[in-house]
This record gives sequence, C-alpha cells and structure tokens, in this order.
Amino acid sequence: MQVFDIEPIDFSKQKSYQHKIDTKTKPLGSLGILEKLALQICLIQKTEYPKLTNPHIIIFAADHGIANEGVSPFPQTVTGQMVQNFWNGGAAINVFSKNNNIGLTIIDAGVNWENNASEWAINKGTKNFLYEPAMTEIELHQAIKNGAKIAENQIVKNNSNVLGFGEMGISNTSSAAILMHIYTGIILEKCVGKGTGLNENGVKNKVEILKKCMNTSHGNETKQNQNPYLALQYFGGFEIAMMCGAMLKTAEKKAIILVDGFIATAAFLAAYFINPLVKEYAIFCHQSDENGHKFMLEFLEVEPVLKLNMRLGEGSGCAVAYPIIASAVHFMNDMASFDSAKVDTINT
Amino acid sequence: MQVFDIEPIDFSKQKSYQHKIDTKTKPLGSLGILEKLALQICLIQKTEYPKLTNPHIIIFAADHGIANEGVSPFPQTVTGQMVQNFWNGGAAINVFSKNNNIGLTIIDAGVNWENNASEWAINKGTKNFLYEPAMTEIELHQAIKNGAKIAENQIVKNNSNVLGFGEMGISNTSSAAILMHIYTGIILEKCVGKGTGLNENGVKNKVEILKKCMNTSHGNETKQNQNPYLALQYFGGFEIAMMCGAMLKTAEKKAIILVDGFIATAAFLAAYFINPLVKEYAIFCHQSDENGHKFMLEFLEVEPVLKLNMRLGEGSGCAVAYPIIASAVHFMNDMASFDSAKVDTINT
Repeated sequence: MQVFDIEPIDFSKQKSYQHKIDTKTKPLGSLGILEKLALQICLIQKTEYPKLTNPHIIIFAADHGIANEGVSPFPQTVTGQMVQNFWNGGAAINVFSKNNNIGLTIIDAGVNWENNASEWAINKGTKNFLYEPAMTEIELHQAIKNGAKIAENQIVKNNSNVLGFGEMGISNTSSAAILMHIYTGIILEKCVGKGTGLNENGVKNKVEILKKCMNTSHGNETKQNQNPYLALQYFGGFEIAMMCGAMLKTAEKKAIILVDGFIATAAFLAAYFINPLVKEYAIFCHQSDENGHKFMLEFLEVEPVLKLNMRLGEGSGCAVAYPIIASAVHFMNDMASFDSAKVDTINT
Repeated sequence: MQVFDIEPIDFSKQKSYQHKIDTKTKPLGSLGILEKLALQICLIQKTEYPKLTNPHIIIFAADHGIANEGVSPFPQTVTGQMVQNFWNGGAAINVFSKNNNIGLTIIDAGVNWENNASEWAINKGTKNFLYEPAMTEIELHQAIKNGAKIAENQIVKNNSNVLGFGEMGISNTSSAAILMHIYTGIILEKCVGKGTGLNENGVKNKVEILKKCMNTSHGNETKQNQNPYLALQYFGGFEIAMMCGAMLKTAEKKAIILVDGFIATAAFLAAYFINPLVKEYAIFCHQSDENGHKFMLEFLEVEPVLKLNMRLGEGSGCAVAYPIIASAVHFMNDMASFDSAKVDTINT
C-alpha cells in the first residue's frame, strides 16, 4: 500500500503574508475570496511571492458495472465516445482549458471499450457493486498508485505546481453518491442527484438501487468498518481511485490541488480520510448543481470559488475557475501597497 | 437632453441558438450560467457565432461633497491618489485587466484635486447633497453626454464590443445608496453598507445622515417626482452619471455592458429607469459584499456571474468575471455537437 507523506502547512509566516495582503491599495478585506486564495497559496508555497507554473488538468475516464442497473440516462458507450471527443478537442474541457492556457491530459483509467487498454487502465470497467465489490484490493491499490504516478510525472517532469483533476464515466455519480454516504454519514437521499439528467422518478429509482447496494454483504462490511480504502474498493471507480491517489501525491509534492465537482470531491473525500493533511493543499473550484455536492462541501467546511450551476465534470469547474485563482496570485505580486503608491490610509 | 435609441432584442432566433447550445456534447443544461450567457450574447450579436472583440474597462473617478459629513473612513484625497495609482498600474484593476487581456482607460470625471481638469471632468467634485443638489441640470446632462461619448469612442474607434465600467470616488456608496433608495423604494437601512470599511456605528451614522438628506427640500422633490434624471442630479456623482450615459450608449451601439458592483449598479438603475431596454445588453458580473447590492440585483431580477465577497469597485468584478464570460462564448463556437463527435445521446 502506497503511503503519502504530506507535510503539514507551516503557519508561522501567516501573519506576514496577511500583512502584505492588508497593505495593498484597497479597503481591508475587499478582495474577499481572492484574499483567502492568495493566503492559502502563499502558505503552500512558503513565499509571499506565489507563482502558478504550467497549470494542468488530468481527466481520468472509466466505466462502471452499476451502469447495467439503469442509473444513468446515457448508455455506457458514451464514456469511450467522450474520451474520443476529448482526444479530438471537441469537449467543453478542451475549450475551457485551451482558452485559459491550461494543459490537458486524458487517461483511460478503465474504459469498457474495444480499444487497446492504456498503460494506466486497470480493467475494462468495474464490476456491478449491486452484486459484488467494484474492484479487487489489488486493483484498488494499483489505481491509487497509477494516479499518484501520473500526478508525480506532471509535477516533476513538466514542472506543474497546480493540478486539476477531472473525470468521465457513465454512472459515476452513483459511485460518488455511495462513497459520500459512507464517508460522511449523510443519508443516501441527500447524496443522490439527477446526474446527467434523470427525471424525478429516475432519481427515486437510483436511490432505491443504491440502498440495495448498501444492504449487500459488502455494503454491510463497509458500514462496520472505518477503513477508507474498503469503501473505495467496494463502491468506487477506477477514475475515482486514481484521482484519490493523484490528489494525495499532489499534496505530498506541495503542489496545489484544484478540486472539481461532485465526483472529484468524492475522490477528495477518500483522500481526506486516508490523510486529512491533503485538505490544506486543495482549492474547491466550483459547487456543482448535482444535489449532493453542497452537502459534501459543507461536510468538509470549505467554500467553493464558483457557483455557476454547472454539473458537467471533466474538470470543467477547475478550468473555468483557474483565471480567478490566477487573479489572486497576480494581485499578491503586482499590486502596489499604500506606502509604495503614496495613498492615504484610514489613519491619516 | 441626449436620447438613447436602444433597439429591443430580437428573440425570433432564440430557439435556434438554444438548439445549438442543447446539442453540444454535454448533458442538457449542464453548463448552467455559461449557457445563459452564451444565449444572451448570441441574442445581442444576432449570431450563433458570437465573438468578444477588444474587451475594455473604463473607470470614471470623481469626488463627492457628501464626503464632508464623515460617511467614509477614508479622506477625500484618496480619490485622486487612487487615480494616480491607476495611472501607475498599481491598483487591483490594473492587475486583473492586464492579466485577462482587457484594455483599461481612466477618466477624471470630476476629481477634487490640484491637477488640471481633464477634458471630460465636469467640476471638482459634487456639492454636498445634505445641503443642496449635488449638481446642476447642465452638469448632469454634460456628464451623461461625456460618458456616452467616451463609450462610443471605444466602440467605434477601437472596435470594442464588450465594455465594463468601474468607478472610484470616496463617499460614492452614499450617493449610490440614496439613488438605490429612490429608484427601488427599498428602505435606506437596506441600501446602506459599510463601504470601504465603516464599523457598526459608522454605518448607523451614515444611515442617519442619508435620512436627513432625503428630508431636505430637494430630497422631498425627488420623492414626489418620478423623473429618473432628477434623482441623479440631486444625489448622484459625476462618475455615476457618466457611467449611466456610457451604459446607455453601449446598449444603443449593441455592445455588451459589463456591470460591476454596488455603485456601478446604481448607475445602471438610473440607466434602466431612463430606458429599460438597456437591461438585455447587460451582464451583472459580481455580487458585491456591500450590503445593498444583493437587493439591487433582486430588484432588477438578475443573476450575478460571481459572488466572491469582493467590495472594491474599480470595475474589479468585471475584470475578474471576464474570462468566465469568454468561456461562454468559446464553448458556443468551439465545442463539438453530439452529431459531429459521434457521441450517443439519451435517445439512442
């Protein structure tokens, strides 16, 4: 099992970073969330001159056995078709990352298609967790390891210090909803949403199916067991497990984690229960319209940068929020202070 | 008096624009606010291939006689010092607009300083509206005309089709609060906020002073008179009146108006009561933390793009939101459709 050695944030310089923020030529606190982001990034990077280098988004795509139960209005074929769409540059994330100068990598983490498996793929989709665990213990740890390695490569070889993680996988809101339920203790009804577009009856049906999943022997085992890996093995997906590993490694490498929407935050929850120190390295980019996401963010006691009523995944929330995070870094470096600009302050 | 001939939006192509949005490779509606922005820009530009050219922010700065009443914690000297800071490139808006590739123009609309007056300046600050109207009728109409001319120049000579408007002016939240009160009928207590940083007692004092202003003869005259120009003349500022004219002209020229925070929205309210057609051309970029702004936006029945707890002015909300608006335009032009990408839809 891979161990992630995440360094706790050193808060000893916090006052000095805050002083720099407070003496910029603006009313105290008037840049709101941007000031919080600037402070967080200074703390992560241990400097009052923070810098974002080679921002990059990695999308992990995989299929889910639970798709057989009709929990999504889209057929499973769409996962592979959307991966092809990513490769062709036609998806929302291609457009957003390109226009915001963010690099993009697509990983086949376990798509159920005819294509040759990628070097990273674990299997052609997970098993149907209504009947059996989604993956084996070996598969789980390989997925976490692969995710960590992919993130590490991007950080070390390509000198990125800010990584966003996205996903694609038909039915993965079902996996994410169960993980949320297990990790947070929030009732399933609040964890389940319409996903890519279920109607009211579809959502009810999805809740009923996921309740059945929790009443299986492997479901009962996760209830009795506080082991964060077990939930991920029994109800996760390969893309979710890889995101979890990638997030933990990113924090270990002291880079910034951009957390996307509902499924990415489920992966983050797994990472958080494996090592809670990961939280200080994470920026929550966008509160998804998917029902459970706001409760996840409340559970984590974090504030999202954006609320644009989006519910797309693919890392789209990271890509759209990135320029705002960059604005926080830019004001910290480039704004004048009251002193340097010779502007009177309140006490004059 | 300048008349603004704003063309009503032609909704006859709305279904066709919406169809293009709905057949992009994403779940229906999953881009949330970005989809609404894309539709609005298509309607304004009368094309399903919208384009943002030479985005530009114009900051209008002016002083206010009401500053003598201690309604701001900052001294009036700060208005001119901040204009100098804008010129030197040291303010938040310089940083944000530069990094988001937005042009920036600073206009002295009526700063009370020793510098030579700019060609656009109306006077060295307004009169103290606790005792007399803030400006004369001639000054008001000159300010509206100047704002319109400045916007027109940017649109016609510099080929901008998206303009944001910002402001600087110590005590201008007092002017904006009274304008909000008169235009919306919302009680003064809900219109008044801490501005650049008043404490609780300071806010109470500000409310009392503004109540006194409303009980003057010119205050009573505005209550009995539904003329939108009168409120602007008696309680506005030169920067607010110029923004109002600039917004109306921008709509007349079928360009997009980016509305910033509390003071800019007060200017927008004036524009809206002069010609309500201006609203369809406006994007509300950011909901300010200044107390009254959310009520203004509710009154206008509009949804802001961002809520970042900022309360800075300067057009900062426009600059920070701009990349998100650009994302809306980019997805509309560059994303594949289900057909073109050969991705299965729900009905397959």
